[in-house]
Amino acid sequence: MIAEILSTGDEVMLGDLIDTNSAYLCDRLKQLGIVVSQITARGDDIAAVKETILQISRRADICMVTGGLGPTSDDITAQACASAAGQPLKLHPEAYETMKTYFDRRGFVLTPENEKQAILPADADVLMNTCGTAPGFCFALNQCQFFCMPGVPSEMRQMMETRVVPRITKAFNLTVNLLIRRLTVFGLPESQVGALLKEFDALFPYIRLGFRASFPTIEVKLVFDPTGCCPENQKFFDSSNQLDSFIPDEKKLAAEKYDPRAYVEKAGHWVVRQLGSKVVSLTGLSLEAEVGRLLKQRGQTLAVAESCTGGLISHLITEVPGSSGYFLLSAVTYANAAKIKVLGVAPETLASRGAVHENTALEMARGARQVSGADWAISTTGIAGPGGGPTQKKVGTVCIGLAGPEKADARQYQFTFADRGKNKKIFAAMALEVLRRQLTGEDAEM
Amino acid sequence: MIAEILSTGDEVMLGDLIDTNSAYLCDRLKQLGIVVSQITARGDDIAAVKETILQISRRADICMVTGGLGPTSDDITAQACASAAGQPLKLHPEAYETMKTYFDRRGFVLTPENEKQAILPADADVLMNTCGTAPGFCFALNQCQFFCMPGVPSEMRQMMETRVVPRITKAFNLTVNLLIRRLTVFGLPESQVGALLKEFDALFPYIRLGFRASFPTIEVKLVFDPTGCCPENQKFFDSSNQLDSFIPDEKKLAAEKYDPRAYVEKAGHWVVRQLGSKVVSLTGLSLEAEVGRLLKQRGQTLAVAESCTGGLISHLITEVPGSSGYFLLSAVTYANAAKIKVLGVAPETLASRGAVHENTALEMARGARQVSGADWAISTTGIAGPGGGPTQKKVGTVCIGLAGPEKADARQYQFTFADRGKNKKIFAAMALEVLRRQLTGEDAEM
Repeated sequence: MIAEILSTGDEVMLGDLIDTNSAYLCDRLKQLGIVVSQITARGDDIAAVKETILQISRRADICMVTGGLGPTSDDITAQACASAAGQPLKLHPEAYETMKTYFDRRGFVLTPENEKQAILPADADVLMNTCGTAPGFCFALNQCQFFCMPGVPSEMRQMMETRVVPRITKAFNLTVNLLIRRLTVFGLPESQVGALLKEFDALFPYIRLGFRASFPTIEVKLVFDPTGCCPENQKFFDSSNQLDSFIPDEKKLAAEKYDPRAYVEKAGHWVVRQLGSKVVSLTGLSLEAEVGRLLKQRGQTLAVAESCTGGLISHLITEVPGSSGYFLLSAVTYANAAKIKVLGVAPETLASRGAVHENTALEMARGARQVSGADWAISTTGIAGPGGGPTQKKVGTVCIGLAGPEKADARQYQFTFADRGKNKKIFAAMALEVLRRQLTGEDAEM
Repeated sequence: MIAEILSTGDEVMLGDLIDTNSAYLCDRLKQLGIVVSQITARGDDIAAVKETILQISRRADICMVTGGLGPTSDDITAQACASAAGQPLKLHPEAYETMKTYFDRRGFVLTPENEKQAILPADADVLMNTCGTAPGFCFALNQCQFFCMPGVPSEMRQMMETRVVPRITKAFNLTVNLLIRRLTVFGLPESQVGALLKEFDALFPYIRLGFRASFPTIEVKLVFDPTGCCPENQKFFDSSNQLDSFIPDEKKLAAEKYDPRAYVEKAGHWVVRQLGSKVVSLTGLSLEAEVGRLLKQRGQTLAVAESCTGGLISHLITEVPGSSGYFLLSAVTYANAAKIKVLGVAPETLASRGAVHENTALEMARGARQVSGADWAISTTGIAGPGGGPTQKKVGTVCIGLAGPEKADARQYQFTFADRGKNKKIFAAMALEVLRRQLTGEDAEM
């Protein structure tokens, strides 16, 4: 099956908006076993959209169209589709009624501009919008089935999930259920992760390996897809008789005897063997969620003392639902006076060693642990940039302290980014990683 | 001029990656007066990319291509371009040398895989990459000039800025310099901002109005573009004789007498009149940067006491370079014990009123101000969700406290989001907004 996406809107062509809808639709279709072959974006221009619709109708089987269903004059998707399909436009009463219900429930008045949203190509089927005003619609042209959805991401997702996916699953008899395994990696650049996993494709030809860098961690994704229901997927099923060592008879692939779960499990173990302790979560959790999981498992609590990370560690920890169960305090002591008063750092340490020093980090961690009564405390003090700190130390320097039930220690790390935002992120991740290693016993040193 | 963008990569087609490069390029080209007419994305497939290159070469004048220049086997842009242009591939020594210098400086060894990156279409011009390994290249085919850049956003941007923009500016004699004015809005949904500014297009036809929602604030962007150097821009210059009330003679538009700055200024004032105090920055600053600017102006300092915002206020404030000049402390007191110990909140207040109460917020703000010695302190305590708090209060409830040199006060606010991340963001923004209004004297109440 050939699938395409058409994204419409001047705001996309003018760079005012990043098109996240297409990535969502690609991912969602992939879960149904469909790899999108082309994405096209056009402005709010009837002629341009019509031309693209006609081109797609001659080469694709399905096409997801987003945007241009709103009430204003620059919303032209219905007109362009009607023109391409040689159909008149007409008011669809069921679309109008749903919209009216939506407005009535909120006490709003339906304007003539809104009425326009229910004027769709005559032969189109309406796709109801339950979380917004713009109805969607679908229609067939040449060999292709078009599904037109709103551009507002939340409305599009809702419509895709409740109206479109059921239709295409039924129409194309899709039963694929992808097996996905995610691992989180910290402390290696993407190129090196790729190099260490170079052999993967040969060893596990039925699993597609994906990387998603979300600085400073990388998600490694293993996707098992046994059906290959579109031609693009066939490449994952070519050649490679090394598969034999994992699946005795290639023809048994679809048979019940064969266990894809064990196969993916095996691939996951291989990845962990290659990347070692750089794998920080075996289930795709973020560093902060993994640290939270470990703390909950042990029934222990955490406090944080932050200087250069400026509250980011605390923000990350509290993004995890349930963090109030183990997170007690973060003292973001940007000023030296606050380090002294809130955390009990000795003025002499600051005077003799400076704010960015292992001893200061150590006293900050000890202070946070003591004032909060937490089992563990981590601390950061460093230079995020862009300007240098009061000391001679370079931008990218950070001292991280860790205080625990048995001992406390601090170390200095040097990163090479010139960017304040990046430095805050990598400092925060490193502090969480220091604690994670301690909790898992991976780091005997500290 | 007709401009297009081709974005390549399986990770885009599989939805593993959101294509931010295209939005950047659209925005950058727009600044040169070029509106992109089509964006296409294809997977790492030589035949597909070649076919698209050929199609684009027959309809566009310039095309920006991103991705597929890396060292691995799925990086196929050079091959596809060579094949489309009917050129052989060859090793470009200057590309190889730059890459070698880059590796040598970092003490890495250049592998045969990397060498592949210097093998480009024979007649292509190399575009040096100064912040990564993959060289870019440009070549002409039919009527179109193609610029192939890496997919890594930072490398692409650097190459676009230093290699591509100078070339196209010169080749197409571009002199456009857009006048852009940005305003930051908080406290109105995008639809309402749109409704309040409905008349804008008629009043200011030479200015394009854009909105970029970055929850919970909205950037309103006024772009003045007098030259309309591409056909797509012409629509902004059509009709509307209401312009006469602002520009006496339309033909004077390009004349020196006419002052575009004053025109944009006038449009900005009109927007501010329509949106009132919901405009939080007249220069597009974020709320936290605007608060920082006001504090610096007064030579005053700030402390924060956070509960439900979990460090986010502090993180936002410290994203602003120079914030160490006015930001002293944030006490993220997630646990009640920390509220008592670090901020001096009375145990009786917590026992009788609960953690989420105006009185608690008030004592937190007073405590933060006192312990830090700051001029101002803001505080938050509320329920971000997804689960309810220990009290009867609903998810979305927040109490915000403000303590200043003269008095202190606290109020409760109710938001309607069910999402933890969204609630943290809007609580943080609201607390910053309370302080901003106080600093500007907009809110006489508090």
